[in-house]
Parts: sequence; C-alpha cells; structure tokens
Amino acid sequence: MTNPIEIATRYIEAWNEPDAARRGRLIAQAWAEDAQYLDPMMAGEGHGGIDAMIAGVQQQFPDHRFVLAGVPDGHKDRVRFSWTLCTVNGVAAARGTDFGILAADGRLSSVTGFLDAVSA
Amino acid sequence: MTNPIEIATRYIEAWNEPDAARRGRLIAQAWAEDAQYLDPMMAGEGHGGIDAMIAGVQQQFPDHRFVLAGVPDGHKDRVRFSWTLCTVNGVAAARGTDFGILAADGRLSSVTGFLDAVSA
Repeated sequence: MTNPIEIATRYIEAWNEPDAARRGRLIAQAWAEDAQYLDPMMAGEGHGGIDAMIAGVQQQFPDHRFVLAGVPDGHKDRVRFSWTLCTVNGVAAARGTDFGILAADGRLSSVTGFLDAVSA
Repeated sequence: MTNPIEIATRYIEAWNEPDAARRGRLIAQAWAEDAQYLDPMMAGEGHGGIDAMIAGVQQQFPDHRFVLAGVPDGHKDRVRFSWTLCTVNGVAAARGTDFGILAADGRLSSVTGFLDAVSA
C-alpha cells in the first residue's frame, strides 16, 4: 500500500489549498473519482462534492489550517490519522481523527471523520 | 442509529466470552452475517471467521480481558471506540482503537482495528 504518511499529507494539503484549480488537482490525486467523505457535520461525494465541502470549511474557518497531529498509520488498505484545525498562531479550533479506506489504485475511496475536541 | 456505547459494549463482551456457545450468540447479536474484521495482525469474515479469530486471541492472551478506554462515539452508521487488553490485575498488553461501519439493521458490517500501543 501507499505510505499512510504520504496519503495523510496529500489529504491535508488539499484541505488547506485556497486556490480552486490547485485544490482540484490535489483532490484528484488524493481521492478516487467516486470517493465519499462523512463526518458528524458534513458529507461529500465525488471530486466535486468533496471540493465544495472543503471550500465551505475554508469559508467557515478563514485564517485556519489543518495540521497533522501525531504519526499517521495504516495497514493493508486502511489508514488513520489525527489533525488539528488551528489559526496561523496555533490556536486550535478543533481536533479530529480520520479513518480512510483506499481504492485499488491507492487513492482514498472512503473517509470517515470523528471529532476529538472542539473549542468553545 | 443504535447507541455507540451499546454497540461497543456488546462487541467487547463477545471478545471476552470464553464459552463458545455464549460467544456465538454474542457475535450474532453484534455482527451482521457477512461482517468483516481487519487489523494489523489478523482478519475474520462472517460469524464463524470472527469467532475463530476471537478464540485464537483468547488462547494467545489467557487471563486477559478487553476493557473499553474512554467513551465510544459515532455518527450515522459509523462508530469508533478504544480499548485496553489487560490482565485481571490491570496490566495492559495492548491498547487499540476500532472503527466500525454498521449494517442497516444496526449490527456491525465492518470493523478495522488499529494498535495504539503494545507492551514490550
């Protein structure tokens, strides 16, 4: 399988990319065409649906970035990694853990997000 | 969806049940018929495959039990929870986190296990 660290890094890059064209390319590299995302607050399907969802989060949290927390790990076609959504000064808005299943080509086919902490 | 705490409790009960007949009933309550389990060390499919896998872990770790760590959570058809495998005196052999996807009837259809720590 592809390296979980590489997969998680590529995934986080897409969430952080404000430029729509570059974000579209990063999403296509990271996710399979029919990929699905689901967390307690939102869902997205396919490259377009996932892009719209990421753009919405960027609008909701301006001046925030996702940063990996800890070391991503995985086995066979499964990966998991944790992240912090924080300001450029490191003030955290939320922390979470994402669990992914990979398609045969090594791109993400399904990601489920869970929240570990949300700031008041 | 069914309560994540209830799902995780039922699941842990099955892993801890040494009596084959009782364990079979607990597995059938917790898991869908075609359910799949996968972690870095083992895999099991269907009630029989999952039962054989659990029996093997019980043989490998006599006098150990699984205990829930923290509060299980979930959303829609997804759950996650952490556990400790420890002796009756509380000496931990391993800690891990399991991610589950539920079938339409609320039983587990897929569980992926990850190891958080293994004792030397």
